[in-house]
Amino acid sequence: MTDTDKIFLTQALTEARHGFDQGGVPVGAVMVRSGQIVARGRNKRVQENDPVMHGETDCLRNAGLMEDYNDTEMYTTLSPCMMCTGAILHFGIKRVVIGENINFPGNIELLLDFGVKVALADDPACKNLMAQFIRKYPELWFEDIAGRSHT
Amino acid sequence: MTDTDKIFLTQALTEARHGFDQGGVPVGAVMVRSGQIVARGRNKRVQENDPVMHGETDCLRNAGLMEDYNDTEMYTTLSPCMMCTGAILHFGIKRVVIGENINFPGNIELLLDFGVKVALADDPACKNLMAQFIRKYPELWFEDIAGRSHT
Ligand SMILES: [Ca+2]
Ligand SMILES: [Ca+2]
Ligand SMILES: [Zn+2]
Ligand SMILES: [Zn+2]
Repeated sequence: MTDTDKIFLTQALTEARHGFDQGGVPVGAVMVRSGQIVARGRNKRVQENDPVMHGETDCLRNAGLMEDYNDTEMYTTLSPCMMCTGAILHFGIKRVVIGENINFPGNIELLLDFGVKVALADDPACKNLMAQFIRKYPELWFEDIAGRSHT
Repeated sequence: MTDTDKIFLTQALTEARHGFDQGGVPVGAVMVRSGQIVARGRNKRVQENDPVMHGETDCLRNAGLMEDYNDTEMYTTLSPCMMCTGAILHFGIKRVVIGENINFPGNIELLLDFGVKVALADDPACKNLMAQFIRKYPELWFEDIAGRSHT
């Protein structure tokens, strides 16, 4: 975690907060290439009635068509679920910076197994926002993770 | 592979053929529950400039918000990439019927490792359509799989 990482993670958290304000699942992401944010995303399960638009997949969609993902990094407020882990591996994103893995463990081991660099921030603001959401809308959260508690 | 499986796989192939006719990546999918098709999907990389809409993810989107995926089955013309494998695992789809894994090996082992039932059709029509597409648009195919040849 560098100071630059903290700046980009804060931008992912801004996306998550917008999602929370919209009544959505507050997970946000940004994609960075060559030190610049090239796309932003947030979970849109509620906003678009779309179960596959998590923060990371929405960010990948918003990045548009790219020939390759060399030198791309993904910043996400919450440890990626199996779908988003698979998306990161499929597109070949090189590094993932994760806000927290307390509210959802995700699949950090699988990312590492495939050679993705991972940095875990354990960020209090990310943890607090997600915990607040889960307390307020436990059923919505349970559906978003399809009844899973782990991966 | 039952006779019913063949009927549903043919419906996935119909989606793939529509995609081909649209100039898109010809991978199609249908989701089945209680013996009925509940959603259809096709790769929309070209049609919607969306890299995350593969046959399976488009099908999951079109299925809309579901409380759970108990008793759901996914039929797909091509062995699922890592993103779609992750989506199948995340949502907890119980069984996947795969048209072919010759043009793209996919991640059948990972599905099996997580307890998903898999049936592989090795279907000539699925293989021919995909092979025809890859010959015609090799660069588009290469980008869709983000430069990977395997997973
Ligand atoms: Ca190109
Ligand atoms: Ca409910
Ligand atoms: Zn996810
Ligand atoms: Zn896929």
